[in-house]
Amino acid sequence: MDERTAYFLSDQTGVTAETLGHSLLTQFNSRNFRQVTLPFIDSEDKAREAVRKINETARTSPQRPIIFSTLVQDEFRAIVREADGLHLDIFDVFLEPLGAELGEQPTHEPGRAHGMSDIDAYMKRIEATNFALANDDGGISRNYEVADVILVGVSRSGKTPTCLYLALQYGVYAANYPLTDEEFESGRLPEILIKQHKKLFGLTITPERLRQIRKERRALGKYSTAQQVRFEIREAEKLFRRYSIPYVDTTEFSIEEIASRILDSTGVERRVRP
Amino acid sequence: MDERTAYFLSDQTGVTAETLGHSLLTQFNSRNFRQVTLPFIDSEDKAREAVRKINETARTSPQRPIIFSTLVQDEFRAIVREADGLHLDIFDVFLEPLGAELGEQPTHEPGRAHGMSDIDAYMKRIEATNFALANDDGGISRNYEVADVILVGVSRSGKTPTCLYLALQYGVYAANYPLTDEEFESGRLPEILIKQHKKLFGLTITPERLRQIRKERRALGKYSTAQQVRFEIREAEKLFRRYSIPYVDTTEFSIEEIASRILDSTGVERRVRP
Repeated sequence: MDERTAYFLSDQTGVTAETLGHSLLTQFNSRNFRQVTLPFIDSEDKAREAVRKINETARTSPQRPIIFSTLVQDEFRAIVREADGLHLDIFDVFLEPLGAELGEQPTHEPGRAHGMSDIDAYMKRIEATNFALANDDGGISRNYEVADVILVGVSRSGKTPTCLYLALQYGVYAANYPLTDEEFESGRLPEILIKQHKKLFGLTITPERLRQIRKERRALGKYSTAQQVRFEIREAEKLFRRYSIPYVDTTEFSIEEIASRILDSTGVERRVRP
Repeated sequence: MDERTAYFLSDQTGVTAETLGHSLLTQFNSRNFRQVTLPFIDSEDKAREAVRKINETARTSPQRPIIFSTLVQDEFRAIVREADGLHLDIFDVFLEPLGAELGEQPTHEPGRAHGMSDIDAYMKRIEATNFALANDDGGISRNYEVADVILVGVSRSGKTPTCLYLALQYGVYAANYPLTDEEFESGRLPEILIKQHKKLFGLTITPERLRQIRKERRALGKYSTAQQVRFEIREAEKLFRRYSIPYVDTTEFSIEEIASRILDSTGVERRVRP
């Protein structure tokens, strides 16, 4: 067994430890990592239980575990420190220089990132998510006046997940409108979109990739034929150019990348930060 | 002006830099940070433009900026390094010990975290998001056989955002079912849920908080009266106990915390990792 275990330790959700660890691990070609998140280590018992699990892994594996840790309370950090593995801890390294720069001692209070320290931020994310759902797929509300951005594109070009991600991650109000035969035949966007021209942002995709995605949903019928996807994409891009709508090709991009590129290109402000 | 600027620099989305920076900054009581993300620094021009922006901030602010950086390409790192501010860089600190441990040199290739390096992961997240949408609010599909987890709770207890977050972040198939008068009057769950008993997870909330949330949506009517929210929550918790459904009080929790606690409590495996 050549497998190595990466542990993500946190006194809270583990999101920071996971994100940090993922960024570092993907810099190496070794890909054979078993990944284990141990969140909510907020008592001596849980800290000792984490050490027990890690040491058990160390004992039964050819290589010692890698431990990404974001515990902030010194007493539990000290316990976890004793686990057998390579410890990589952002607080160990960055807290001191940041405190010196700010001229302030860190609080060592848990749960301040990704926690409920800010009810206002929570409500903003929830409201933005509700907005995305009500304004998904050209649907129901068409409440475009309050939208921060309106994504346009053919079916399955990535509009819905991107809108939901923008809402959940950043509290951004993102609507989306699907381009269909109605727009392709007239060569025009509906008035309700033209009125919000500055908020429009297009998503496009390669025909090959779109066909692959559509086939997963509906293998048969015109929807996923090579001819149909090529037609739709060509017409959609024509509309983007005709109306000078900025757009991005989502083929090679993850949801995070599409979202970041939209924010970067439009200058839309994040209403909350992760 | 006492404001300090925090920059999040990345050759990709900036998600890692933002997450790292947020975790560190929330350890201090200073909260007056202007936050600026500069993503996609993947050319010499963009690196120099970032330096220009940061130095401009440094010149016009009483305190120098704090720079959270996750650039992986040495040539652009070297340029960005010259910006005036406190540099905190996870790759500076952790790449070398991690490489030594793995016995491997880092690739310094950008875009491997949060990138499209893994189409399979992208598809899993998209499919999980579609699943969450189709199985939201007890709706349409009721495709509970393939669900990883089914959240139950009263209206506005946090079910929908949690399901969407589990899908987008972890590719987990999360359905949700709203408890309403039908269940409260009979004191029973529907057969379709009982059959999936092991997948059920309850969300509850305090009456005060639920009322506050519901009022934002619909200020008038029975829906947000003190009496109604108390009744619904009491009956929902009765059902959780009657059917031995594990549940969590979402009142003090962010979406990330609710999601992490569900995964931690149920042992449901993340299908992808952020």
